[in-house]
Amino acid sequence: MSQHPDTRHQREKEHGGNDFKIACAIIDDARICHVGFTVEEYPYVVPMACARDKDQLLLHGSVASRVMKSLADGLDCCVTITHLDGLVFARSAFHSSMNYRSVMIFGKAQLIEDELEKSRSFDVLVEQLMPGRLAELRDSTPKELKATHLLKLPIEVFTTKVRTGPPDDPKSDLGLPVWAGVVPFGTINGEPVTAPDMRFKTSAPAYLSKM
Amino acid sequence: MSQHPDTRHQREKEHGGNDFKIACAIIDDARICHVGFTVEEYPYVVPMACARDKDQLLLHGSVASRVMKSLADGLDCCVTITHLDGLVFARSAFHSSMNYRSVMIFGKAQLIEDELEKSRSFDVLVEQLMPGRLAELRDSTPKELKATHLLKLPIEVFTTKVRTGPPDDPKSDLGLPVWAGVVPFGTINGEPVTAPDMRFKTSAPAYLSKM
Repeated sequence: MSQHPDTRHQREKEHGGNDFKIACAIIDDARICHVGFTVEEYPYVVPMACARDKDQLLLHGSVASRVMKSLADGLDCCVTITHLDGLVFARSAFHSSMNYRSVMIFGKAQLIEDELEKSRSFDVLVEQLMPGRLAELRDSTPKELKATHLLKLPIEVFTTKVRTGPPDDPKSDLGLPVWAGVVPFGTINGEPVTAPDMRFKTSAPAYLSKM
Repeated sequence: MSQHPDTRHQREKEHGGNDFKIACAIIDDARICHVGFTVEEYPYVVPMACARDKDQLLLHGSVASRVMKSLADGLDCCVTITHLDGLVFARSAFHSSMNYRSVMIFGKAQLIEDELEKSRSFDVLVEQLMPGRLAELRDSTPKELKATHLLKLPIEVFTTKVRTGPPDDPKSDLGLPVWAGVVPFGTINGEPVTAPDMRFKTSAPAYLSKM
């Protein structure tokens, strides 16, 4: 890809690409994604829970089954995941930026209909969303599995974009008397809140601290 | 809105609506949004920085100006913001859920072209993204403002969806010997990382702790 010289320096910090491993790492860090599709020429973007099953993106939404049905009908979709990793404080507003990792996956999603595959895929999803939880839960009933709508989208056509590192100020700004750098963001778990309908005393399980 | 009796209980915890104040609160907590639009029948979802200026959503992207141009050309778009507030651990995988707040805003975005309006809007954006920072930054130059592409989208046609509270298990599961509750999520700032090209010693400013 040719680069205009003016943008070369910037691009060292902001990489576009289509490396499968980078895409997987971005997906594996996610619990939700934004699914875009078009119905009667109008665009929609809905948040859905997601997980990766090898080279497939699994999607699970509390969205109306109408939406799931539209997606499963072979609509083209674009699924985007973005992690905001930090704020980049340059010496000017113009050069300030954000550190982030994003992936856009394009394709047609498919409803998972085979019962065995659905059951297995649901396990994969639950394990990515709530690592460690699955082992202590009862099995889903056939009725529950029937009411669960899962989609899969091949991770084949995608593009990643990642910005890391410090601000990228022009030399003429380096003398300005202002702090510059990065404030990284992280997610923390608050204290687990036990459900009010717990019938017996059970302490919050250890795996919660690793969510 | 009529409700099927089966879903009534669930809906007490998962509210859809179109209250302007709720939409504003969701937007004001955000730094990024996902912008969906359709080009030649294909959907795209791109992450962009965002802020609220009264009843307008401001959008600013490091995306190619081609995308900004498409959006500004009167394309319909759907902008979705989602905050994942916590994981809801029910006694079964099926009833497990997430607490979240989301808003979808529909409409046509407009490129902000008036120089004064652009300069003011850019200030609003910077202040929402990096509260306190603006006061110590130099003014943007006319050339920088010219190279800044900002869109505005009226917060008029939108829908919010919010889930809060504990899991919602069926009575038949309440005796299961498994912890149930919510693990809330929060964002924290890591230690500020000073830019390697800082020419003098300046400690990280106090407002960083409030990001």
